[in-house]
Amino acid sequence: MFKKILENVIAKTPLVHNITNYVTVNDCANIILACGGSPIMADDISEVEEITSICNSLVINIGTLNERTINAMIIAGKKANSLGHPVILDPVGAGASSLRTETVFRLIKEVKFSVVRGNISEIKAVYSGTSSTKGVDANIADIVTEKNIDEVVSFSKTLSERTGAVIAITGALDIVTDLNKTYIIKNGHSMMGKITGAGCMLTSLIGAFCGANCDNLLDATAAAVCSMGICGELAYKKVLKTEGGTSSFRTSLIDYMSKFNYDVLKEEMKIESR
Amino acid sequence: MFKKILENVIAKTPLVHNITNYVTVNDCANIILACGGSPIMADDISEVEEITSICNSLVINIGTLNERTINAMIIAGKKANSLGHPVILDPVGAGASSLRTETVFRLIKEVKFSVVRGNISEIKAVYSGTSSTKGVDANIADIVTEKNIDEVVSFSKTLSERTGAVIAITGALDIVTDLNKTYIIKNGHSMMGKITGAGCMLTSLIGAFCGANCDNLLDATAAAVCSMGICGELAYKKVLKTEGGTSSFRTSLIDYMSKFNYDVLKEEMKIESR
Amino acid sequence: MFKKILENVIAKTPLVHNITNYVTVNDCANIILACGGSPIMADDISEVEEITSICNSLVINIGTLNERTINAMIIAGKKANSLGHPVILDPVGAGASSLRTETVFRLIKEVKFSVVRGNISEIKAVYSGTSSTKGVDANIADIVTEKNIDEVVSFSKTLSERTGAVIAITGALDIVTDLNKTYIIKNGHSMMGKITGAGCMLTSLIGAFCGANCDNLLDATAAAVCSMGICGELAYKKVLKTEGGTSSFRTSLIDYMSKFNYDVLKEEMKIESR
Repeated sequence: MFKKILENVIAKTPLVHNITNYVTVNDCANIILACGGSPIMADDISEVEEITSICNSLVINIGTLNERTINAMIIAGKKANSLGHPVILDPVGAGASSLRTETVFRLIKEVKFSVVRGNISEIKAVYSGTSSTKGVDANIADIVTEKNIDEVVSFSKTLSERTGAVIAITGALDIVTDLNKTYIIKNGHSMMGKITGAGCMLTSLIGAFCGANCDNLLDATAAAVCSMGICGELAYKKVLKTEGGTSSFRTSLIDYMSKFNYDVLKEEMKIESR
Repeated sequence: MFKKILENVIAKTPLVHNITNYVTVNDCANIILACGGSPIMADDISEVEEITSICNSLVINIGTLNERTINAMIIAGKKANSLGHPVILDPVGAGASSLRTETVFRLIKEVKFSVVRGNISEIKAVYSGTSSTKGVDANIADIVTEKNIDEVVSFSKTLSERTGAVIAITGALDIVTDLNKTYIIKNGHSMMGKITGAGCMLTSLIGAFCGANCDNLLDATAAAVCSMGICGELAYKKVLKTEGGTSSFRTSLIDYMSKFNYDVLKEEMKIESR
Repeated sequence: MFKKILENVIAKTPLVHNITNYVTVNDCANIILACGGSPIMADDISEVEEITSICNSLVINIGTLNERTINAMIIAGKKANSLGHPVILDPVGAGASSLRTETVFRLIKEVKFSVVRGNISEIKAVYSGTSSTKGVDANIADIVTEKNIDEVVSFSKTLSERTGAVIAITGALDIVTDLNKTYIIKNGHSMMGKITGAGCMLTSLIGAFCGANCDNLLDATAAAVCSMGICGELAYKKVLKTEGGTSSFRTSLIDYMSKFNYDVLKEEMKIESR
């Protein structure tokens, strides 16, 4: 499973246009390079259409949105739509401010997204417009568990139907779903929540995987989620061995992505479909 | 000493709103996560009041200030004041340009700061409006030594009286003072001056410590300064052992903060009070 | 060769003003510190003249240009020219959008550059205005080899004559030339292309080397290119030994720069002049 997905990323060197935040942008660029893609970051209104045209996919991340970049996101998103490029949304902190929640609604109204990835609190905010988002981290009251997973899958499918996008909710348990099929993924490590950018990096990675696999966005997204989770597990083992901490964990996470291949994926993947 | 300060950081997971520069923002986010807090970076005028409202403290860092973000700083600062949240100022490069010096004066006039942290040249610029600031690093002529420390403590106390803020001057010798009590701290390592962001990270760390200890800002600030210095010392030892350099020093510094606890603090702290 | 160049960097602690992109800005600051310089990042129109006045050189990098920062680049560039400071241009992604290509032409028209450094596709775009630039990475069709090197040197010399700048084209083979003399450098490692920022870091490093060696810009640029390449080679060896990947490669690259000295340069330099 997902063998062809990974092969395509390597074979096609997808060029990924990122309009993203200035907190984790360097990690996003490095994870795209690590997986075999090529990143370009450009957010000025007068060039985003041209830049997105030479790319294979577009990632929109609202982590440090402002008036200038919101307009650039919409213009770039429409252009990517007109070209049939996958467009990925990371609604960072949706629910934490009206600006974020309203921008997400405006984006979803004006741009057709291929994938929306967030933590459970962010996706709930996208779904309902109200939220218990605590900053940019998921509210503990929202955490997905074996007990509430059916409910979460159900509203994710509704959101997928409403938006036409693959919905990816990541946390201790990851859900990747479209209207017809759902993957539940159990890879990853809790230390991913102790560094900034694990979520943003995953969204950019999904951008690369989808850019190289336009005809199979659900599997491309699920493969990216599994790959990231496995790299997190491997990085944690390395941190233990080298007596590191959260920052060397981040380094190792990207390191493992730069050495990732199908054999590792096949061996370590913890995924089921429904 | 400071046991309760550290316990509160862990127990409360302080949410820290940062309006900061794009050079070291990633390190600031990671150090806040490492110590047990949760960072959020947001600088658009239309959301800073809402974002700061859900947080426990606000950090204002003028490292790459511009007209747009200066206004956001003031609006957010006033809101944080009205809510009684600690507000921390890092006057990066004060004295290096009129824009920086005047912005600091404007900020101090319009916002009540809980803590102001800078290097000696920056704090002198805040104190006197004139400065020998050499870029963003302290001018060697200003360096705090055993010889001039009484003089520096004296003007710091005056500045504390004038602003109502705890004043933290960091360098080879660190001074943390309010009107009544002064801590002199000798932790730290000179390699902290060979990476960008050691100062910015400390300011964000103070944001987290104060966010969890609103009723004891002097001790919270001193505990943050000690903790950062100790992590610098430990990181330097690791760099020697692993034959690293300045970049792996930065990684180790954050690593040690992610494993920091009261036992380490008690063992390694070099602090005296006056 | 280049002994005096390195000595001057250490002796003078050049202060480098960077107007650069938010993707790799942290790496740029850290590499300047690592080599012995001091970085300052400032891009607001109302302070760039003052900031550049206290510095020894100015680096302009268009990686995430926007209307606001383009104006700051021109104002700062003119000021640096009037003071006789070296000004270095990194035309990131020139050829990938009209905004980038036109901005480069506007910059070259209004500011006299001391050095222009880019990959082959970017420099071709600067030379001809048209380009096969693929995002921010060089197009494989453009790669400099032993076969086409004479042709590349020839157009680089023409560009040097036209602009008055030292031209540095970096890739598997590096070319550093002015109208009279050309260096061909074979240091470096292909993993430098698998991290973001290797090019940007080199440009900032050139800023530090030129800031300390205003009277010998060609040699200062060539020495920086060699030094960066050698650190890349050493970093790759460390990555192999520690079973790392691209992110620990980046860390090691900066580490080696922080420990670099003339003995290493003399031993490892692969350079010829024509």
